[in-house]
Amino acid sequence: MLTSFGESHGPAMGGVLDGMPAGVTVDMDLLQQFVDRRRPGQTIGTSTRNEQDVVEVLSGILHGKTLGTPIGFIVRNTDARSEDYDQITKCYRPNHADFTWQEKYGIYDSRGGGRSSARETVARVVAGGIALQALSTLGITVETHVSQVGKESDENVVAKAIADAQSDGDTLGGVISCTIKGVPAGIGEPVFCKLHAQLAAAMMSIPSVHGFEYGDGFNMSTRRGSEVMDRFIKREDGSIGTLTNHSGGIQGGISNGDDITMRIAFKPVPTLMRDVPSVDHDGNPVTLHPRGRHDVCVLHRALPVVEAMAALVILDNYLIKKTNHL
Amino acid sequence: MLTSFGESHGPAMGGVLDGMPAGVTVDMDLLQQFVDRRRPGQTIGTSTRNEQDVVEVLSGILHGKTLGTPIGFIVRNTDARSEDYDQITKCYRPNHADFTWQEKYGIYDSRGGGRSSARETVARVVAGGIALQALSTLGITVETHVSQVGKESDENVVAKAIADAQSDGDTLGGVISCTIKGVPAGIGEPVFCKLHAQLAAAMMSIPSVHGFEYGDGFNMSTRRGSEVMDRFIKREDGSIGTLTNHSGGIQGGISNGDDITMRIAFKPVPTLMRDVPSVDHDGNPVTLHPRGRHDVCVLHRALPVVEAMAALVILDNYLIKKTNHL
Amino acid sequence: MLTSFGESHGPAMGGVLDGMPAGVTVDMDLLQQFVDRRRPGQTIGTSTRNEQDVVEVLSGILHGKTLGTPIGFIVRNTDARSEDYDQITKCYRPNHADFTWQEKYGIYDSRGGGRSSARETVARVVAGGIALQALSTLGITVETHVSQVGKESDENVVAKAIADAQSDGDTLGGVISCTIKGVPAGIGEPVFCKLHAQLAAAMMSIPSVHGFEYGDGFNMSTRRGSEVMDRFIKREDGSIGTLTNHSGGIQGGISNGDDITMRIAFKPVPTLMRDVPSVDHDGNPVTLHPRGRHDVCVLHRALPVVEAMAALVILDNYLIKKTNHL
Amino acid sequence: MLTSFGESHGPAMGGVLDGMPAGVTVDMDLLQQFVDRRRPGQTIGTSTRNEQDVVEVLSGILHGKTLGTPIGFIVRNTDARSEDYDQITKCYRPNHADFTWQEKYGIYDSRGGGRSSARETVARVVAGGIALQALSTLGITVETHVSQVGKESDENVVAKAIADAQSDGDTLGGVISCTIKGVPAGIGEPVFCKLHAQLAAAMMSIPSVHGFEYGDGFNMSTRRGSEVMDRFIKREDGSIGTLTNHSGGIQGGISNGDDITMRIAFKPVPTLMRDVPSVDHDGNPVTLHPRGRHDVCVLHRALPVVEAMAALVILDNYLIKKTNHL
Repeated sequence: MLTSFGESHGPAMGGVLDGMPAGVTVDMDLLQQFVDRRRPGQTIGTSTRNEQDVVEVLSGILHGKTLGTPIGFIVRNTDARSEDYDQITKCYRPNHADFTWQEKYGIYDSRGGGRSSARETVARVVAGGIALQALSTLGITVETHVSQVGKESDENVVAKAIADAQSDGDTLGGVISCTIKGVPAGIGEPVFCKLHAQLAAAMMSIPSVHGFEYGDGFNMSTRRGSEVMDRFIKREDGSIGTLTNHSGGIQGGISNGDDITMRIAFKPVPTLMRDVPSVDHDGNPVTLHPRGRHDVCVLHRALPVVEAMAALVILDNYLIKKTNHL
Repeated sequence: MLTSFGESHGPAMGGVLDGMPAGVTVDMDLLQQFVDRRRPGQTIGTSTRNEQDVVEVLSGILHGKTLGTPIGFIVRNTDARSEDYDQITKCYRPNHADFTWQEKYGIYDSRGGGRSSARETVARVVAGGIALQALSTLGITVETHVSQVGKESDENVVAKAIADAQSDGDTLGGVISCTIKGVPAGIGEPVFCKLHAQLAAAMMSIPSVHGFEYGDGFNMSTRRGSEVMDRFIKREDGSIGTLTNHSGGIQGGISNGDDITMRIAFKPVPTLMRDVPSVDHDGNPVTLHPRGRHDVCVLHRALPVVEAMAALVILDNYLIKKTNHL
Repeated sequence: MLTSFGESHGPAMGGVLDGMPAGVTVDMDLLQQFVDRRRPGQTIGTSTRNEQDVVEVLSGILHGKTLGTPIGFIVRNTDARSEDYDQITKCYRPNHADFTWQEKYGIYDSRGGGRSSARETVARVVAGGIALQALSTLGITVETHVSQVGKESDENVVAKAIADAQSDGDTLGGVISCTIKGVPAGIGEPVFCKLHAQLAAAMMSIPSVHGFEYGDGFNMSTRRGSEVMDRFIKREDGSIGTLTNHSGGIQGGISNGDDITMRIAFKPVPTLMRDVPSVDHDGNPVTLHPRGRHDVCVLHRALPVVEAMAALVILDNYLIKKTNHL
Repeated sequence: MLTSFGESHGPAMGGVLDGMPAGVTVDMDLLQQFVDRRRPGQTIGTSTRNEQDVVEVLSGILHGKTLGTPIGFIVRNTDARSEDYDQITKCYRPNHADFTWQEKYGIYDSRGGGRSSARETVARVVAGGIALQALSTLGITVETHVSQVGKESDENVVAKAIADAQSDGDTLGGVISCTIKGVPAGIGEPVFCKLHAQLAAAMMSIPSVHGFEYGDGFNMSTRRGSEVMDRFIKREDGSIGTLTNHSGGIQGGISNGDDITMRIAFKPVPTLMRDVPSVDHDGNPVTLHPRGRHDVCVLHRALPVVEAMAALVILDNYLIKKTNHL
């Protein structure tokens, strides 16, 4: 289980990954490389904010092996320029969480979004990166790609769509496709904690996500039962499998041994690089003049976040499966 | 929190609803009416299985008021015809959970799907029905409708689509739209338990659900940031609101006081009323001859289930909100 | 995990035991016999209230084997005489929970103590009885005995002490000693969920318990370190053990393979069979004239409750242990 | 809820305190002073290990107020001398957790006890210190004192008993008494999470604790019901209270508004400053020559730990109480 903490412009982000089995080899270089994939400035359309995001593991790993104890870690916030955010301390940015946090807590750290900043996801990537290394020893891998940016699903025109939006001071959303391979049959809890329900909760908890589907998803709802039936067959090795995979590798909330497939929809980045009308805390009209460094499209940075969340869910359920028998 | 139990063809389904506040008035007739809405045979295309689904509350309610103690309840299974299911005890039905349960537990109650039967949802409806009554005293209501059946979103042709599928021995899925009204701003936990992440998990845990979106959902991912910006305004009464509601009433995982809107995609019913090729537990080819009573389309029966799950999530988060301040 | 429900004078007590592994054989006759051990009227000094306490399992067990699904069960309340309790609906009984429940919930079922009645423990005994059967297949057993009644620890004079108290309309408490045998080394979670911390919580949750100790307990705090050191030795079979067991089979919150020993202190039964001064809900003085049927000493009836709680904790931790490695 | 991490000789101990209400004033100097109370070298009989234990709060507090977000914090380990512990990496120290950790995880950080070191309690003291400051604004305070060291309960001879044990290279245990004042009636969850059950679990989770009792505790089990009856009275201000407090401020697992009283028994420190016979990992006989710096008696250092755990439990239950009504 991952517990995380940290405000965007506080001293550090961090987390505690508890319940990781003992004796798992963790390659710290590989982990750092994985974390680096979500850094800004790596791909077109992402912020130039230059964070090093150095992972400091404080416990739970000794001589490259997990101890079975909680893995505490931090990532220092080094490149925050709080002055860029002065205006927003008294105003509500549209499609951001300023207003709802104020309503909920009556107080919030407005600098860079505070706790509601997508910077929070760095803790997920650290923890998920460790989970991924554990899963890989079991032959389980997670693959993602950006399958849609705005209205475009053709990789060749995506870069142009982002450049166009950027030149307009506008932003884009999109869809990430994720496939989990090598999950044995029998993983997942029926009823309230169906495997896809856990995956949905995990993905929907990523900032900006507005939709989740697995297998044929929303499209499956338009088909007849006969059209989406995954017919069982006996494979040459004697095992039982299915000819097709409309179900996305999960039936009744439990993995069937096939690839687990999901699609995750992200809304466009809420911060535009143009003047935006809004209100201050008293409801008076204001015009926001964004000056920070912001992404036009976060989809590529979000890939390791999706992989991390998938890995955490699958590893949890892999371990729970062990308790199904005495 | 709801804990539920029961196999489709066992003596009873039931559950325990714990954490319900004390002193809430529960109208048992209203509750029974709500539960009756998910009974089969009520609408076109649903099974003629005639279950009375009488709610027996065993604890937690005295003289029509909740005591604050766990509300235990059962609903007897009265109309099970186990002989209808003899064949399936040795075979795997496609798009059902027979195979995955066998892989997970090595044993399962195959009669009518056992625990993986959608009959399990009767416990959700009982618990959710009580939660709905609690929410209504707070001015919070949940509304649902079937917005799509198969490819049809026009109510006038939906009945024909179902009749057509039925005559073909085939089945249909669809989409349920849900709107939660009257939720005050500030409800929901940020980061891992965002309100929409909890709603997603709740809805995805309903049998047959393959997709979830809130606000503009997947469609939002195709738009530019400027097109889906919910601009803040000061209302006449001095409160702050938004001109539009692309965000679906939630920002940063916390309610903003606007309507909470969701769409939930259901796959078509997996049991066809025609011969279906499959395999037995040893992988040998078999032909399934379905003889039970099955729904062609479950969307209308699922409406109270969606309402129930929405109510349970909202009530939980309404109560948690009380702990945000000393 | 056990979730329970039921008020003493409602229709039924019950519970849901979730997470029980699949394929465990449950002997229902043995289970009923175990539950019968906590019935009143079995031993000297216990109430003559004649409850049959018939266990009705509603789910999770088929043909004598657990399915891995939640085991729902109820025990009907058949012999309640609510009229015996009329007086207490407006008065607070000393050393009972009437006052605190009223303060907490503003409403409570006063008949026979409602939810705070020790009758609640019947659900624990049902669930724990199943856990005990699972543990016995692993060679783990739980033994208890009444080691003290009032000031007496000599079994030969205990019966007389109870008879004396009864003739005075008074009541007695005492101490139950519990030994869990056959627990393998390595069970229990360090830090917050130490095995003895979980056992303490489980035992302290039994009505009337006021103290818990394991190993040499309070007496250990009076000794020097050199006097209570459990010296390690290599046994003839090559395994490592200890010469003594001051530590009670647990070190650092984790079982060491030795017997787990505990002592649990019960306060005297709060209901005296004599007039007792108290106050009503408005604080006005009243005299209570107890007329129900009450135990003089509950220690013997509590033995299966202690065994049940021990079994639930040990089984949980046995299963969790499986997740310590990939 | 507190999640903690850290091995004794790793880079840092730390934790995440989640669920702390927003807007609570935290005085960092006061917090540091509280944490300093558990440092060694402060009182007779404690280790001279000189740790500064500087609290670094990384999130959740801004300008001296809690934000309602997770409070992440670390305390660096600065004075570890790992070479002192070389011998123990291959040997099992009696009454320590070396053996049980090895059995559980197959790997452990033996330096200074690693995760099982009492150094782990520094995270509890940080989190509990914040909880204490929150409680003090509600008029709730926690008081502790060492009521027994070894066989001595007279403060005047305690110091001599410790000096005697020290000169013998031996160690002592004892008892801490704790009183929580100002808790309103109605706090605590009935049945499995009775307030005293939660307190017991919290106290028993502190290293070296072997016994817990509340109110008259074990002594209560030797009395008759008539002797320990807390008679209700109407106080001059019209409120209802009790004349005595044998029950320790809790009835039926719920606070009654009176002082909550507890006694917690600690075993003697397991590390003697003399040669001790033991075995290595293969079971071969060895003689341990302790060379680290160790406490003779930890009771005085444990006082803030007890206060911290009490505060965390009470604050949790204070907040949960708010959810008992809509």
